[in-house]
Amino acid sequence: MMQNRDAGHTPVTVIGLGLMGEALAGAFLRDGYPTTVWNRTAAKAERLVSQGAKLADSVGDAVAAGPLVIVCVSDYDAVHELLHPLGEVLDGRVLVNLTSGTSAQARETADWAARQGSTYLDGAIIAIPPAIGTADAVILYSGPRSAFDLHESALRSLGAGTTYLGGDHGLSSLYDVAVLGLMWGILNGFLQSAALLGAAGVDAAAFAPLAKKGIETVTDWLSDYAQQVDDGTYPALDATIDTHLAAMEHVIQESEFLGVNAELPRFVKALTDRAVADGHGGNSYAAMIEQFRKSSGT
Amino acid sequence: MMQNRDAGHTPVTVIGLGLMGEALAGAFLRDGYPTTVWNRTAAKAERLVSQGAKLADSVGDAVAAGPLVIVCVSDYDAVHELLHPLGEVLDGRVLVNLTSGTSAQARETADWAARQGSTYLDGAIIAIPPAIGTADAVILYSGPRSAFDLHESALRSLGAGTTYLGGDHGLSSLYDVAVLGLMWGILNGFLQSAALLGAAGVDAAAFAPLAKKGIETVTDWLSDYAQQVDDGTYPALDATIDTHLAAMEHVIQESEFLGVNAELPRFVKALTDRAVADGHGGNSYAAMIEQFRKSSGT
Repeated sequence: MMQNRDAGHTPVTVIGLGLMGEALAGAFLRDGYPTTVWNRTAAKAERLVSQGAKLADSVGDAVAAGPLVIVCVSDYDAVHELLHPLGEVLDGRVLVNLTSGTSAQARETADWAARQGSTYLDGAIIAIPPAIGTADAVILYSGPRSAFDLHESALRSLGAGTTYLGGDHGLSSLYDVAVLGLMWGILNGFLQSAALLGAAGVDAAAFAPLAKKGIETVTDWLSDYAQQVDDGTYPALDATIDTHLAAMEHVIQESEFLGVNAELPRFVKALTDRAVADGHGGNSYAAMIEQFRKSSGT
Repeated sequence: MMQNRDAGHTPVTVIGLGLMGEALAGAFLRDGYPTTVWNRTAAKAERLVSQGAKLADSVGDAVAAGPLVIVCVSDYDAVHELLHPLGEVLDGRVLVNLTSGTSAQARETADWAARQGSTYLDGAIIAIPPAIGTADAVILYSGPRSAFDLHESALRSLGAGTTYLGGDHGLSSLYDVAVLGLMWGILNGFLQSAALLGAAGVDAAAFAPLAKKGIETVTDWLSDYAQQVDDGTYPALDATIDTHLAAMEHVIQESEFLGVNAELPRFVKALTDRAVADGHGGNSYAAMIEQFRKSSGT
């Protein structure tokens, strides 16, 4: 341990040892950080302890073990349940909350942490547990730049894609749900297509290579789409929305013909119909941003 | 021209000179194929003629010019309007229809073509016109293997991703709508996220790099998802559907909070709720395939 401290490795605390918390603590240990852990069910710490982690007797002891406290639990209610009773032990420490939630929850938690005298960074993990500590793990942080800079080298142990987004504590949650939205777009698109092809006797595994190629192609368009969204002008460089609409009709017809669920393509077509009604039929698909921007109430 | 014929370049005909048809004829010309073109509006052929194409006086003359006839027009109605009156000039030729449509339309057209004595390949272009003739163009064919093999080298001029799918004429349209479904999944996911981030003051261009990274990550999962879909078992290797559902609630809350359209995340959550009701809450998201397989009527 002395060796690590000599090398300038800040002691870190990880609270919450679900699959993700365990992966986080494991990455710190691998990189030589003195790591204290706590979990409601202590048994979950056994493997980490065998790797050199110190298991704290209480949340308060875990927090007291070092200047950098990482929390990764099921939701923000659990965060507050664990930390609210602690009082002044939080004072002067940097609290990094990697629990999933909304931007409003992140901002509320930042306000609460400030009242305890601690510095708060909100974070979002865009990776599955096995990717933690690798080049593939993207972890986003928002909050005071100085706190991020102070602990950046420790945080970078968790993933090469460690990224600071800005001072607004809500940013990491916002980017998180933005990436999740894209994720479900891909997964649902793939599964809808797999259902359709499956009904025609084609295996999903046979479709996967073409799906990947198609995704690559569309991904290459996103920078141009982003530019059009930001500019508010949507010249049809490739296909017009009218052309998309005709093809959507084909997807609905195929789905109905093959007896699979047509709700998703019907939903997409209904939204696209509205863009045409708003006069965007001759524009690129990026003009759909105006439909997505419209409030749909609560 | 004699030089090309000596080199074994089959004369080809391209009917329909929209953006895509023009790109197809241009690719044949660049590769030295004697190319005859026809379009309802002859003026659209001018650039191709200056590049060496022969403009036919009629559809019948165009078809008569060679053994390989490519049709790429607005829809199958237009295909039939052009070709039905021709009669026996089609006899003995290979007709390749790259017009977008459904698998049922492809099979009907194959039956009709057989009655004219011509061999029919249905095709689908998974590329935008500027990509035609390049490594990026994927073009799918279905129909008799012998016809594809006979003209494969000519067809390969149109794109390095030239792929034969099988004897069922409907396959190319089915794969086409499958890729399109994925495309709208990505585009809508990106635009929904761009709307959400935009409402919080983040430019779409600032989100694009992270979006691309996120897409890469999810794309890497698809082979495993495909395997689970084909196996019909859905072990949760990463997140469970219950975990997805909690995150979907965050997207809805963020969208409502920021006053942007929450219809897409609400739709996705409603579909996911049904998977949980069916007992799949502890499974991987691949179990959603069972929702997509359910007929939703016509």
